[in-house]
Amino acid sequence: MDMYYWKCPVCSSPIDLEYPVNWLPRGYGVARYNSLLPVYVEPVYGEGETPLVSREYNGLKVFFKLEYLNPSGSFKDRGTVVALTYAKRLGYTCVVEDTSGNTGISIALYAKALGLHPIIVVPEYIPVGKKKLLELYGAEIVYASDRSKAALKALEVLSQNPKRFYAAHTWSPFYIEGYKTIAYELYEQGFRRGMVVAPIGSGGLYLGLYRGFRDLYNLGLIEEIPFLLGVQGASVQPVYKMIYNRVVKGESYLADGLMVENPPRLEEIASIVKEYGDVVVVDNDEIVDSLKWLVRNGFIVEPTSAAILAGLKKYVSMKKIRISGEVCVLLTGSGLKMLEDIYVLVKTRH
Amino acid sequence: MDMYYWKCPVCSSPIDLEYPVNWLPRGYGVARYNSLLPVYVEPVYGEGETPLVSREYNGLKVFFKLEYLNPSGSFKDRGTVVALTYAKRLGYTCVVEDTSGNTGISIALYAKALGLHPIIVVPEYIPVGKKKLLELYGAEIVYASDRSKAALKALEVLSQNPKRFYAAHTWSPFYIEGYKTIAYELYEQGFRRGMVVAPIGSGGLYLGLYRGFRDLYNLGLIEEIPFLLGVQGASVQPVYKMIYNRVVKGESYLADGLMVENPPRLEEIASIVKEYGDVVVVDNDEIVDSLKWLVRNGFIVEPTSAAILAGLKKYVSMKKIRISGEVCVLLTGSGLKMLEDIYVLVKTRH
Repeated sequence: MDMYYWKCPVCSSPIDLEYPVNWLPRGYGVARYNSLLPVYVEPVYGEGETPLVSREYNGLKVFFKLEYLNPSGSFKDRGTVVALTYAKRLGYTCVVEDTSGNTGISIALYAKALGLHPIIVVPEYIPVGKKKLLELYGAEIVYASDRSKAALKALEVLSQNPKRFYAAHTWSPFYIEGYKTIAYELYEQGFRRGMVVAPIGSGGLYLGLYRGFRDLYNLGLIEEIPFLLGVQGASVQPVYKMIYNRVVKGESYLADGLMVENPPRLEEIASIVKEYGDVVVVDNDEIVDSLKWLVRNGFIVEPTSAAILAGLKKYVSMKKIRISGEVCVLLTGSGLKMLEDIYVLVKTRH
Repeated sequence: MDMYYWKCPVCSSPIDLEYPVNWLPRGYGVARYNSLLPVYVEPVYGEGETPLVSREYNGLKVFFKLEYLNPSGSFKDRGTVVALTYAKRLGYTCVVEDTSGNTGISIALYAKALGLHPIIVVPEYIPVGKKKLLELYGAEIVYASDRSKAALKALEVLSQNPKRFYAAHTWSPFYIEGYKTIAYELYEQGFRRGMVVAPIGSGGLYLGLYRGFRDLYNLGLIEEIPFLLGVQGASVQPVYKMIYNRVVKGESYLADGLMVENPPRLEEIASIVKEYGDVVVVDNDEIVDSLKWLVRNGFIVEPTSAAILAGLKKYVSMKKIRISGEVCVLLTGSGLKMLEDIYVLVKTRH
């Protein structure tokens, strides 16, 4: 097995990859963009190539990118296929990950297909549907009392055997590079300029989007990087806090995918937010309000995805901005994995 | 509103549509094949364009067409978008359907987006996850004690108001024409000859596949119609019985999508099975066996989909056939809508 680093062995900073990119889209899904990825991937479950559909929302024409229709039900598959293809190529036989749920499900799904054994460390409080899916996918599940403890536990599990690869999706450059393919697809689906609304949990998706659009810009395919609106939840808002030096009051525990206390790339994210977009903070009530609209309109997504739409609504009403170009909201994760919870939120909460 | 017929008003036979077809694929998903469809459709949720991935199964290379990644979690969306676009164009404001579950979910989903009010008549015994989805999609749900009673009840509901359109997916030619797009996609994904394995419940999917390949053949794009293996369940096997004049013993209630006692197009299906393929019957044990393999390999599908793979396994071992060309199995419906049931089947049943 070859060595790999999931962070800098000297200064413990996150690592990035530099490699030449060309615009030679060919084939299907994520693999269509192999000429812009750090690892040559084969399609595993047909990840990527998600639909882009438009609807009217609050008098605004909004394009929704249905990332929740990815094979494991979330955008994470785009990063996982890149990261685990790399792990396999290096000769690893086992993959370890700490996660609030969706990444674990994605990794368990792809690990099986790529012949890697998945060990997934999760907080005990993740929805029961997600636990069952992990079990069904044959993952070895390790429980921790919260998200931070899960991260520590993962390192412990990792250290027990040198054949274990740490997917480390909140650190990994491979995940970020995989997420770039969303920007490429948006371009091929006709998006040229405007605003893209994305969540900022660990910030990997936000960074991936930026880098994807930066590639398109550097390749001369688009004339400007779109406005990138990041959405955080009131319970955990490190990027908002760093930029605005204050916090928005409220709770946002419903959007569990946004609950990342210490994003490893916090400063980089904040600098991109400042240069290319903005960040907005939403709370549980706003999340439920958007979730109801989404579900009523046929988009069964998880609350974290509803938070993204809530962010758009709040930002537009707060800033009274005029958007020039198209508005695109990423719907990141499926609600089918936690249908009971969605049902209760939509039917009973006012 | 214009009149429509869901069956012949004189002899009560199913109706078919004749119209010219051209091979001019353009755009995305089902709408990509507008030149081969009876109604011009716009993409609603990005239906169609499902992945095709290969795996080794019992020493055989099998291509799986992941129809369960359609927006509502089943292949039904391909028919629904065609049928409801037609209903809307005729001026109807409400759509009525009787269904064992998946079609109702698909219709509820598309009705909302197309501005139609969905009334869905279902047997009481459908999985609770499916009921909740119907509710979340805003369908008006009417319960009946079984599948046949649901069909009668639907006609009653229909007769109460002339603005109600009967989707009638087991009768409708629009559903069948929508399913043709699976054949077109398989062609564009590289499939040229071999075997396609599909379920026969009402037989609409099987007929649609046949007609799609017949179009491709008539257009000179393929040299032969592939071998079309139909799969029925032991509990309800009208096509097998008609062809072989006997039945296979056993129960198959797990595959609820196959429980159609009197397919309206029975004779047509049987004649196509005789000319272009064969039919095989599977039981609950075989279904669970395949379901375990599928889930272990990352395909979280419902038992009806597992029945299809079980049919391939049984047919290959029974007939000792050599397959020339590719083998393609349709995975028709997502297991996420009934994850509890899947979990119990996979984890506890031996």
